[in-house]
Amino acid sequence: MQLLEEAIKSRGTVYPGNILKVDGFLNHQIDPDILRAIGEEVYRLYRDAGVTKILTIEASGIAIAAICAQFFNVPMVFAKKSASSNISKTVYKTTVHSYTHNRDYEVLVSKDYLKKDDVVLIVDDFLSNGAALTGLIDLVKQAGAALAGAAIAIEKSFQPGGRTLRAQGVRIESLAIVESMDDGNIVFARG
Amino acid sequence: MQLLEEAIKSRGTVYPGNILKVDGFLNHQIDPDILRAIGEEVYRLYRDAGVTKILTIEASGIAIAAICAQFFNVPMVFAKKSASSNISKTVYKTTVHSYTHNRDYEVLVSKDYLKKDDVVLIVDDFLSNGAALTGLIDLVKQAGAALAGAAIAIEKSFQPGGRTLRAQGVRIESLAIVESMDDGNIVFARG
Repeated sequence: MQLLEEAIKSRGTVYPGNILKVDGFLNHQIDPDILRAIGEEVYRLYRDAGVTKILTIEASGIAIAAICAQFFNVPMVFAKKSASSNISKTVYKTTVHSYTHNRDYEVLVSKDYLKKDDVVLIVDDFLSNGAALTGLIDLVKQAGAALAGAAIAIEKSFQPGGRTLRAQGVRIESLAIVESMDDGNIVFARG
Repeated sequence: MQLLEEAIKSRGTVYPGNILKVDGFLNHQIDPDILRAIGEEVYRLYRDAGVTKILTIEASGIAIAAICAQFFNVPMVFAKKSASSNISKTVYKTTVHSYTHNRDYEVLVSKDYLKKDDVVLIVDDFLSNGAALTGLIDLVKQAGAALAGAAIAIEKSFQPGGRTLRAQGVRIESLAIVESMDDGNIVFARG
């Protein structure tokens, strides 16, 4: 997606440890035009997939999920990272490893909001090692729901998440695929 | 806002401790029609306020902020609840008390995304004791930015947040105001 690739090139910053910082337009401050374009493109890709629910994980997936839910006109659900007294006691749970923070955390979705007749589209801002996406897929499986696939804003294809999950048959559509970013030089994969 | 009040009545649940659970349509699963209507109404209320930025706090304010940012066509920023290695080291910080979890937490916004020429509209899902809103206002003040006001989906007017902050001159527009919910009977304030 050209608008997103341009924003990554002009407004993204590469830090040591394969960190691509896009806080200026995607996951701390969020650009309204880029967000709308992401929603449009995800809808174009999955409009015929029968999606009944958008699923993401807090916090940086929520804005993307919210805009996608507007295009699909279906509810969105965000998985919560820790138990809350405001949440139903009947939840699906899984464990996700955060490479950024180097720890495991528990992720929850209420059983009320993922049902076996749902067709779920998972959306997230990044796909690197695939930990969050693997956890979200596990929640969909626990619910007995169908998985339409995943829509990711930025995939780092030099990390194994996308390759591993596609090999398991998961449909993954990434709007910008970073093939390498050695010495801060961001190179995108071409279709 | 009628659609929101109807959803609170039909899909909300009152729990002991003045907890109003609206996880089914506002802050775990999010209804796309209600979210769109919130965005429209917030835009109607603040369209002439010169808003340049929408500010909220993770996680349950993000979807509302994202839709509002679409209507205003300005960037949104969400304050983060803990330090992250993915965030700039130059941040505005404040401390917020969570009554739900009964603890204090630190809230951060990068100095890159709140500037002194910004006119900021704060949005959030709930206003009860006003802790989160007070913290967000503090971040706006630290940045030297102007505060257009706050837009809140659900205010509990029997708790002191709204009264206290309005007395300080803050413009607060709440789309549904719950006056009481004794014995699970939700009563809305009438303008």
